Amino acid sequence: MNRRNFFKKTAATGAATLLIPEIVKAAMPESSSTNESQLHYLSKGETILFQGDSITDWGRSRRDEPTPSTQGQLGGGYVLFTGANILANNPEKELKIYNRGISGNKVFELADRWTKDCIELKPDILSIMIGVNDFWHTKTHNYTGTVEKYATDLDKLIKDTKKQLPNIKIVILEPFIVHGGSALDDTWENDFAPYRKAAKKVALDNDLIFVPLQSVFNEALKKAPASYWSTDGVHPSFTGGQLIAQAWIKAVL
Amino acid sequence: MNRRNFFKKTAATGAATLLIPEIVKAAMPESSSTNESQLHYLSKGETILFQGDSITDWGRSRRDEPTPSTQGQLGGGYVLFTGANILANNPEKELKIYNRGISGNKVFELADRWTKDCIELKPDILSIMIGVNDFWHTKTHNYTGTVEKYATDLDKLIKDTKKQLPNIKIVILEPFIVHGGSALDDTWENDFAPYRKAAKKVALDNDLIFVPLQSVFNEALKKAPASYWSTDGVHPSFTGGQLIAQAWIKAVL
Repeated sequence: MNRRNFFKKTAATGAATLLIPEIVKAAMPESSSTNESQLHYLSKGETILFQGDSITDWGRSRRDEPTPSTQGQLGGGYVLFTGANILANNPEKELKIYNRGISGNKVFELADRWTKDCIELKPDILSIMIGVNDFWHTKTHNYTGTVEKYATDLDKLIKDTKKQLPNIKIVILEPFIVHGGSALDDTWENDFAPYRKAAKKVALDNDLIFVPLQSVFNEALKKAPASYWSTDGVHPSFTGGQLIAQAWIKAVL
Repeated sequence: MNRRNFFKKTAATGAATLLIPEIVKAAMPESSSTNESQLHYLSKGETILFQGDSITDWGRSRRDEPTPSTQGQLGGGYVLFTGANILANNPEKELKIYNRGISGNKVFELADRWTKDCIELKPDILSIMIGVNDFWHTKTHNYTGTVEKYATDLDKLIKDTKKQLPNIKIVILEPFIVHGGSALDDTWENDFAPYRKAAKKVALDNDLIFVPLQSVFNEALKKAPASYWSTDGVHPSFTGGQLIAQAWIKAVL
């Protein structure tokens, strides 16, 4: 099928929205979200590592830790959707995909396990989603860390990683909330925003790829309520996980 | 982003292969695989039902049976990947997606539970993948059903369904094997082929949508070995499940 016929078909049937998701397109217009020069061409044998908290972890099997690119390794959330898409579409590249998210983690807890759970895996692409617990646990777990600590710890983690793995490409997924979710109270909108901004600043300061997930979920909420995209306002539903995967692929590949 | 810029970007970076999968494109050239006039435009409130055996079932939660469009309902295989994509890209349509696959089922066992597990759900789109056990169990379970019985039972099931739900759109997923898988012996290639052909004939005779999954997996094997796409030659891996989802979407939507 040539391009003309492809669009003739998709324009007629609506399939274009499946291939080029409307929500992600709206949230990530080319001019603002992605530096095209950063887009990555996957090479044979590369390693992709997903790091983060429960949103990344999402039921992954600890027993499968040694084995990349398995369903147990990837878990059941956005990493599964992202990984399955990448693997199905790049079968000849023998990609190694790891998930090392751990539920409840804050950025300093990533740093504590970074040698084993990042550096030793030698990722070519490192994707990090972290920050919601750095805020949430100040409300629920008597955690006393501030947004300044979050920003400083994240920046140091990035700089240390780049020093040890100079050719690494790093992707920062914006920590986000889904407005209207049951775990959120009125303070979240204002008080969590600085964490989102800090993640973006670290990404820009270090010339990383930044995926604007708050914009993605804000667009998504124009189409369906919070419960469609998220279980509680913090954790994405599988439908929200699929959105994250689409945004990741659009931003990185 | 307009179409020209989209293709400018994707042509430069390889992302086109993620959006329009090469394997599925090669296996399903427009001229032979899909009757474009059959492509479905999803309307608000529609119900999609996936029926089949273990490949469809794949860990779905029986407890979630009453609740459509949940991760537990969809399970962990191709239905999850298909459903997540459809739901993320059609959030305003309030689609109800059900999985009623049951491991080990042959076509007559679908018929035995059809009123409860199909007709009463009133699907607008019914997707059926059935047939591998109709053959396999003749080798492993002393099952004595023939391919003629398979074809007759499937044809009757389709005609009965269309009689009771005249506006239904039915999708037949070709039963397939992944050559080289550990569960297959030398007899499969020749002896299973009639089942594939019977499924296709029923689909064409009844003007259904047919998804040529054997062609998809044959194309896939040009890129990576059987173990990449399938756990045993019969059951797809999650990567194979993602391929099926892409083929389903290309053929139906």
